[in-house]
Amino acid sequence: MTAWPQRIAEDLTRLRAERPLVHHITNFVVMTDTANLTLALGALPVMAHAAEEVVEVVGQARALVLNLGTLTPFRVEAMRLAGHAAGQRRLPIVLDPVGAGGTRLRTETALRLLRDLPVTIVRGNPGEIGALCGARSAVRGVESEGSPGDLAAVLRNTARTWNAVVAATGARDLVSDGERVLGVDNGHVWLTAVTGTGCMATAAVAAFAAIESDPLAAAVAGLACFGLAAERAAAQASGPGTFKAALFDALHALDPETVARGVRVVHVR
Amino acid sequence: MTAWPQRIAEDLTRLRAERPLVHHITNFVVMTDTANLTLALGALPVMAHAAEEVVEVVGQARALVLNLGTLTPFRVEAMRLAGHAAGQRRLPIVLDPVGAGGTRLRTETALRLLRDLPVTIVRGNPGEIGALCGARSAVRGVESEGSPGDLAAVLRNTARTWNAVVAATGARDLVSDGERVLGVDNGHVWLTAVTGTGCMATAAVAAFAAIESDPLAAAVAGLACFGLAAERAAAQASGPGTFKAALFDALHALDPETVARGVRVVHVR
Amino acid sequence: MTAWPQRIAEDLTRLRAERPLVHHITNFVVMTDTANLTLALGALPVMAHAAEEVVEVVGQARALVLNLGTLTPFRVEAMRLAGHAAGQRRLPIVLDPVGAGGTRLRTETALRLLRDLPVTIVRGNPGEIGALCGARSAVRGVESEGSPGDLAAVLRNTARTWNAVVAATGARDLVSDGERVLGVDNGHVWLTAVTGTGCMATAAVAAFAAIESDPLAAAVAGLACFGLAAERAAAQASGPGTFKAALFDALHALDPETVARGVRVVHVR
Repeated sequence: MTAWPQRIAEDLTRLRAERPLVHHITNFVVMTDTANLTLALGALPVMAHAAEEVVEVVGQARALVLNLGTLTPFRVEAMRLAGHAAGQRRLPIVLDPVGAGGTRLRTETALRLLRDLPVTIVRGNPGEIGALCGARSAVRGVESEGSPGDLAAVLRNTARTWNAVVAATGARDLVSDGERVLGVDNGHVWLTAVTGTGCMATAAVAAFAAIESDPLAAAVAGLACFGLAAERAAAQASGPGTFKAALFDALHALDPETVARGVRVVHVR
Repeated sequence: MTAWPQRIAEDLTRLRAERPLVHHITNFVVMTDTANLTLALGALPVMAHAAEEVVEVVGQARALVLNLGTLTPFRVEAMRLAGHAAGQRRLPIVLDPVGAGGTRLRTETALRLLRDLPVTIVRGNPGEIGALCGARSAVRGVESEGSPGDLAAVLRNTARTWNAVVAATGARDLVSDGERVLGVDNGHVWLTAVTGTGCMATAAVAAFAAIESDPLAAAVAGLACFGLAAERAAAQASGPGTFKAALFDALHALDPETVARGVRVVHVR
Repeated sequence: MTAWPQRIAEDLTRLRAERPLVHHITNFVVMTDTANLTLALGALPVMAHAAEEVVEVVGQARALVLNLGTLTPFRVEAMRLAGHAAGQRRLPIVLDPVGAGGTRLRTETALRLLRDLPVTIVRGNPGEIGALCGARSAVRGVESEGSPGDLAAVLRNTARTWNAVVAATGARDLVSDGERVLGVDNGHVWLTAVTGTGCMATAAVAAFAAIESDPLAAAVAGLACFGLAAERAAAQASGPGTFKAALFDALHALDPETVARGVRVVHVR
């Protein structure tokens, strides 16, 4: 297998050449920012959530994002319709279970979508991922101790349970396909000072999933490119406001050479 | 007739003196950015989409924007109510048919609003405008060849069909009232790297329509000022993120002298 | 009593140490910006407006924001549910009556929420506050003359009527608990060139209300810190776009020493 940095660089080149359409059914807080992230990476966003049109939109897209922030029952119905259409077309579905574990509506919606749809990749924070694996004690362990060892096990179990690639982002992002567990060490602490950066990471993963047939590679590529852009943006910024503007500049300016030199992917177990 | 640069400069002066209220029923991706664009140009935005209040809001406004992005049936109903009230008050209505031609919901909503409401100005991209003129072969020609000659004919036909000024934005913006076809050569390629810039162009047109009784002049003024601000913003920016911040600075800093010197309007046919 | 600058500096220290969760039911124009403001100040935002989950979210929060922009009847229902839950838990409720006085839906919703819920703090512009006090002549006086004397009286009456702290923002912000009337002289004129800055001021007040038991002190602290950050941001910016980015930087960089030196609070009567 090609080394990760080289492979991610090649994926970025392909993403920019193919400019795939990515359909987002997402929350109101991050709609603008995730559309701009998608554009900055080189893909084309389409934001549409009416039940009356999502199936048609999926028919033109190459990946589908389902993001549970600012959830309402209307939006859940649109997600189910879009997700079934994506499944029939064998499009990658990327789920961001925002707030799973926080409220019953979020947890139950996330679990129902995982049961009913062929979700390809899940991207969340450790707490959200923990809420999807039913391993309540393991989750508590993750939250109280934050031990990467435990988190890796939770990820692997969750990936096996739902037959999906599962990614948890943090100081070190972890990604598992149920066998391998990889770590991505790119990123910057200012990502925690801007709302929606988790959702942006999910959108980056979806852009790569549109052109990379291995979902583990797509998740690693999206997180590594996003984290690397964050590092470069921080060098230009003087706080979270200018950092956010610089983040789009840095994503847009990413080139394969920078990626090949800058991404840091490790085998965790 | 006064030369275009001088006339646009005078319109900008008037816009800033009168500070008209512009009512936007618009999509969730661009709500913040189009409100900020309206403020930066010197007008006052009001964003309201509940059927329960849109008629009252129209009663205080001097122009109405109907934007079809992130459309839902609820919003369509509010647009119809607001549009009828605007028609009775003879307010300019500016339609942005986001996604027309892309899904049946968008195309049919755009056509229904055009049939039922006295729409004053339509602003879209060439594909969206093509979907409104029924001339399917002409549209295909536009999309495959991108020939300005064909697009000018489509615009003129669409303007005649709907008795409205029609504008298609691109490297050269084209505007027609069904007789004349004008071109606006201001703009910058980074506008294509930021989401919602088409919707911002529509909002700029609406701000001028609030104070300029000739809709052709309002459309030209809005597109020229927006494009000129984009050129000036690009000179201060290092990518799409800082460009977007600089765009609001540049719109706010536009003055009549800069406009009179910088806008480039040509007669196409 | 400790002097105001010292007290506000201590509140900021506490806010950053405790990182309280603030639940926002707010409008679509400002959702992203008020979430980012909350983070920049040191608190944690949660944006959730589905009737199905707001009570659960309130159960985890330490303050609740109810903001009436882009209002719909669905959202009003969620606000009532969340507000009652907050009342039972004795959480501070901060109401932003966006557009009260402008449409019947907004005015009646604001008055109904004030009647039915134990609202702790109201933050609006002078016209919106005037619409809540029933003193129609007083309001007209405020709008036509803009005399601070009249506005102080309106504020005090409104605060007594609703048994809440009431704040009206402007060149000088005024805050009253029905007895005292305080003025906050921090701020910058560019706040009027960016949409949602009033809503951001409300969010700042709510962040302090989450950790400061005296609502008058919370309102003063939120407005003073927000205004001071605006002053510092303006020094780094060249227009409303870069100002908005710099505003988040400045909020994030605020430290107790800067606050103790920079806030300007006066006793008005």
